[in-house]
Amino acid sequence: MGVVVQNIERARPEVIDGLGRAGVATVHEAQGRKGCLASCMRPIYSGAQIAGSAVTISAPPGDNWMVHVAIEQLKEGDILVLAPTSPCDNGYFGDLLATSAMARGCRGLVIDAGVRDVRDLTSMGFPVWSKAISAQGTVKETLGSVNVPIVCAGQVIEAGDVIVADDDGVCVVRRAEAETVLAAAEQRLAAEEAKRKRLAAGELGLDIYDMRPRLAEKGLKYV
Amino acid sequence: MGVVVQNIERARPEVIDGLGRAGVATVHEAQGRKGCLASCMRPIYSGAQIAGSAVTISAPPGDNWMVHVAIEQLKEGDILVLAPTSPCDNGYFGDLLATSAMARGCRGLVIDAGVRDVRDLTSMGFPVWSKAISAQGTVKETLGSVNVPIVCAGQVIEAGDVIVADDDGVCVVRRAEAETVLAAAEQRLAAEEAKRKRLAAGELGLDIYDMRPRLAEKGLKYV
Amino acid sequence: MGVVVQNIERARPEVIDGLGRAGVATVHEAQGRKGCLASCMRPIYSGAQIAGSAVTISAPPGDNWMVHVAIEQLKEGDILVLAPTSPCDNGYFGDLLATSAMARGCRGLVIDAGVRDVRDLTSMGFPVWSKAISAQGTVKETLGSVNVPIVCAGQVIEAGDVIVADDDGVCVVRRAEAETVLAAAEQRLAAEEAKRKRLAAGELGLDIYDMRPRLAEKGLKYV
Amino acid sequence: MGVVVQNIERARPEVIDGLGRAGVATVHEAQGRKGCLASCMRPIYSGAQIAGSAVTISAPPGDNWMVHVAIEQLKEGDILVLAPTSPCDNGYFGDLLATSAMARGCRGLVIDAGVRDVRDLTSMGFPVWSKAISAQGTVKETLGSVNVPIVCAGQVIEAGDVIVADDDGVCVVRRAEAETVLAAAEQRLAAEEAKRKRLAAGELGLDIYDMRPRLAEKGLKYV
Amino acid sequence: MGVVVQNIERARPEVIDGLGRAGVATVHEAQGRKGCLASCMRPIYSGAQIAGSAVTISAPPGDNWMVHVAIEQLKEGDILVLAPTSPCDNGYFGDLLATSAMARGCRGLVIDAGVRDVRDLTSMGFPVWSKAISAQGTVKETLGSVNVPIVCAGQVIEAGDVIVADDDGVCVVRRAEAETVLAAAEQRLAAEEAKRKRLAAGELGLDIYDMRPRLAEKGLKYV
Amino acid sequence: MGVVVQNIERARPEVIDGLGRAGVATVHEAQGRKGCLASCMRPIYSGAQIAGSAVTISAPPGDNWMVHVAIEQLKEGDILVLAPTSPCDNGYFGDLLATSAMARGCRGLVIDAGVRDVRDLTSMGFPVWSKAISAQGTVKETLGSVNVPIVCAGQVIEAGDVIVADDDGVCVVRRAEAETVLAAAEQRLAAEEAKRKRLAAGELGLDIYDMRPRLAEKGLKYV
Repeated sequence: MGVVVQNIERARPEVIDGLGRAGVATVHEAQGRKGCLASCMRPIYSGAQIAGSAVTISAPPGDNWMVHVAIEQLKEGDILVLAPTSPCDNGYFGDLLATSAMARGCRGLVIDAGVRDVRDLTSMGFPVWSKAISAQGTVKETLGSVNVPIVCAGQVIEAGDVIVADDDGVCVVRRAEAETVLAAAEQRLAAEEAKRKRLAAGELGLDIYDMRPRLAEKGLKYV
Repeated sequence: MGVVVQNIERARPEVIDGLGRAGVATVHEAQGRKGCLASCMRPIYSGAQIAGSAVTISAPPGDNWMVHVAIEQLKEGDILVLAPTSPCDNGYFGDLLATSAMARGCRGLVIDAGVRDVRDLTSMGFPVWSKAISAQGTVKETLGSVNVPIVCAGQVIEAGDVIVADDDGVCVVRRAEAETVLAAAEQRLAAEEAKRKRLAAGELGLDIYDMRPRLAEKGLKYV
Repeated sequence: MGVVVQNIERARPEVIDGLGRAGVATVHEAQGRKGCLASCMRPIYSGAQIAGSAVTISAPPGDNWMVHVAIEQLKEGDILVLAPTSPCDNGYFGDLLATSAMARGCRGLVIDAGVRDVRDLTSMGFPVWSKAISAQGTVKETLGSVNVPIVCAGQVIEAGDVIVADDDGVCVVRRAEAETVLAAAEQRLAAEEAKRKRLAAGELGLDIYDMRPRLAEKGLKYV
Repeated sequence: MGVVVQNIERARPEVIDGLGRAGVATVHEAQGRKGCLASCMRPIYSGAQIAGSAVTISAPPGDNWMVHVAIEQLKEGDILVLAPTSPCDNGYFGDLLATSAMARGCRGLVIDAGVRDVRDLTSMGFPVWSKAISAQGTVKETLGSVNVPIVCAGQVIEAGDVIVADDDGVCVVRRAEAETVLAAAEQRLAAEEAKRKRLAAGELGLDIYDMRPRLAEKGLKYV
Repeated sequence: MGVVVQNIERARPEVIDGLGRAGVATVHEAQGRKGCLASCMRPIYSGAQIAGSAVTISAPPGDNWMVHVAIEQLKEGDILVLAPTSPCDNGYFGDLLATSAMARGCRGLVIDAGVRDVRDLTSMGFPVWSKAISAQGTVKETLGSVNVPIVCAGQVIEAGDVIVADDDGVCVVRRAEAETVLAAAEQRLAAEEAKRKRLAAGELGLDIYDMRPRLAEKGLKYV
Repeated sequence: MGVVVQNIERARPEVIDGLGRAGVATVHEAQGRKGCLASCMRPIYSGAQIAGSAVTISAPPGDNWMVHVAIEQLKEGDILVLAPTSPCDNGYFGDLLATSAMARGCRGLVIDAGVRDVRDLTSMGFPVWSKAISAQGTVKETLGSVNVPIVCAGQVIEAGDVIVADDDGVCVVRRAEAETVLAAAEQRLAAEEAKRKRLAAGELGLDIYDMRPRLAEKGLKYV
């Protein structure tokens, strides 16, 4: 506790933006079905779809002091990711912090705790994925850390990892794997397009994916 | 496990549609306050109000193979209803499966688990009631069953039962009781209209329903 | 149980309306970070921001009889606040009761249980903060009380206390403290405006609030 | 609602007792991995292992009137199984009801709600599996039903089905399948004995069950 | 926040001890089915049955400083009752604090948060009712208050109220009502004894409480 | 997925055993209040206090195939630690697997899912910390990994990390930090002994830790 890592590496902007366009479900599949944060992490408004480099915050329950420290570490295109050191649903973050973060180029917040001023955040277009919406305020008494590895909603997140977030939730991509995952995601999107057309025309997945023989072999019975 | 029932009976379309127009709260009351699925079942977008015949799916946790099998069994006006065999919040269903289901006339999905691609599903106008939104993918390894009786979010649902779903959640009506329930629902709607006018005019439920004597008898004290 | 307190004191209307304009987060901070109801209390639609005097209801699980009794006690500008005597997510309240409550000048409902007919309530512009949306109906068999002190979603609420509710949730202000809290809230809003401008211009909270010396003293290390 | 089915069929006592000796995990596997009630159903004390015929109760939330009605329907070797019609954790059942049920030959209670007087129940040797322990009392105002099919902790239970309960939780066996399941359970127990010896001697499941080829085929890599 | 009320009134010792002997379920019923804390409050070991005067603690999440302050306020026969100002499951209390509290005559702890060193507490015979067992430590940075009214697990508790706790959970009795409640509890215990004998002899509650006519009137049907 | 790391490093046995003797709360504090798994992880029986080297398992929901694979990797003094890739409460582990694991020198299991055969495991003296007890069986269809880093109940655990578990729950110590943490833990235990005596003699923590001046400075008021 009490450490701020100042220089973190980030993935290349075009890779990050490509992952953002692919979206959470595609990226998650493309990297081998891993990286999804717990489903309790919901957007405060629908329609936002972003990607960015994680600036991580490990904060004590009910104490948002480290958010101020983290904002200084933000660069254009970053996303704040906060995990409390024990479960807490307080509103760590509101419109003033969002104003400050946006001024530094921050694209959004992912927080395994609460957020407040959600009407203002929505007007400002500052998206947040959180496990709670709560006006309950916090103190500024105890140190945490910034840009250390954290566990947020069940996933390890290291500073500089790529965070992808949309209406389906949040997914983390290891920085070192970002390019490979993007390539796989783009392939997947292309492949899906053809399937979508066939399915829309009434073809069945059973036939497109040739599932019938294996279902029969497993013993599926039609009665 | 491993059974697909192919020919199921359905209620008459005009009965199903009538129940859909009546909506969940009215139908639930009309059949004697039964049939509501647990309140964790929420729509992915608001405003949808549907009814249809249940095509049921019993699926293992984290395995959506049976959804493909079930889609072949869909007829115009059906609703897919999936219950995992143990609690699971994975995203069993997304836009490709929805495309396929819509091509077969499916009106929506009720799933006691997770769903993904919710932005696409919303654009497509394919409504889903689920207990979670999650991008977490599933495998296709283990058989389940289709059109067998299931317990979904606390209610027994048999293939061909009528599912009614709207912003209040989901309710099931036994196929054999659908006509009787519709009649009762329509009566109820008519009766409510008169009450609504009197209440809007400032009359009290205490008087309209003649509650005062019984409240006094039970011992209610005004101080 | 079984008591209806008929004459309750209320805060002055302009104080109530001022608190409503300030909103939940500001009011909560202004009164020393107290009064927030649990974060499970969510609005059925976004955008509503209200304040009013609490008319409280203590009701048995699954029994909404006392809502009818409470509606008679409503005056212009009141908010119904219901707590079940043990956890319950039934739909105690729907569009007919809302019609009746609105006819008496009621501004909304706060309920640590369920609500139904949410589409109608939304069209009517009758806001509700609840822990569940559920069509599950209730009975009218057992007495509760009206305008007695209750614990609702973790907070004590007495009849005549001021309820403030918006997209961030719900906060209670003691009637006797309402004027003081309003003054503090207005001061806070004024002070925030200046800070917002500085933060938007890129200044850091670390500097505006002079946090660096205290962080250093606590041992924060930059690496 | 409001129905008491008086004459129910039960499985043969020796089949019931055999299932009780086999225990929950074995019975669950023997019938094809089905029938387990949700894992929130926990015994109030450890060490009890029972089986019996279900006498079912569907009761309103917070109302235990039907327990009295159900006790009259008990025969030697029965187990009471109660599901509230919506989620409730009240203490529906305590030492007086247990005294009455034991006097009728009842072997225990399975309740998807709360129980109280657990110290007395433990001294009496009356086992209960419940989702909560709570002293919160209930009323006797609204009818429910006895010996109708219910959904209890996620499983359909019909009157006369065999309930098996031990420290692992609760499992239901359809009455008509009880004999077949018992035979399968006994086979399973016999087979396990041999495996247990080999495993205790240090042999690996990988070899005993010949898993290595299939793991390799699926692509498992040792590094 | 930041207030310690030093002189609190307590109920008479013999009244407190009488309530302790009566136990939670009886006391709860005797005072009109009120006062039970939420059922998540469980004892760390079974068999303890205590009553005492509440010394209340309102503490920030993750901060146990006020426990030290409260211990100074303890008198022989008191029970510490702690509620965090927002949900928290940290281990606020362990064997050292218990040693200190016992030295001041404290009978136990009721905490709507976590406790640790439960093996030591069990050996020491210091009973705790908590919503969690957790080794997660806390800080000592932020003030709370002692002997102010708190909401603990859904119930208002004022300093000097009588806390009754046993294997069924925890119940609070208002100090001013303690004698009346004790009298009612003792009557209830006496009445139960006679009923227990009749029930054990096989008489039915249906007959002892003369329920049959009212059940028939409500429409109960035997089929 | 699908990787088994075969050679892992472990801490020295005497360090591991020393951490086990210190126990979870002490170790957690000694390493700077970190490493506690979520408080839902509870022992299946009380009194066990162990430490060992983690052999980690990442397993799909409802699939325990990898447990067999992991058992082959066990060495004397290891502890199995399983995290499902999405939330699951199935009973992945029972008495046969425990027999096999014990034969390889395994000291216990930590599983963020369910366990079964708890009566047998208790008789065998094989301790388990789990979030659920459930007889629900699993399949053997999909690969996971062994001895890769996992997130279990909110903490990262790498193969060879030291797991400490007792009645307070579970704590992880990084392998590389194990010796330092043990030294700190032993110091802490020694220091606590002196404090315990003073507290038992009636001295107050307020005085022993010299808290009064700082409380006064923060503004604590005695009234």
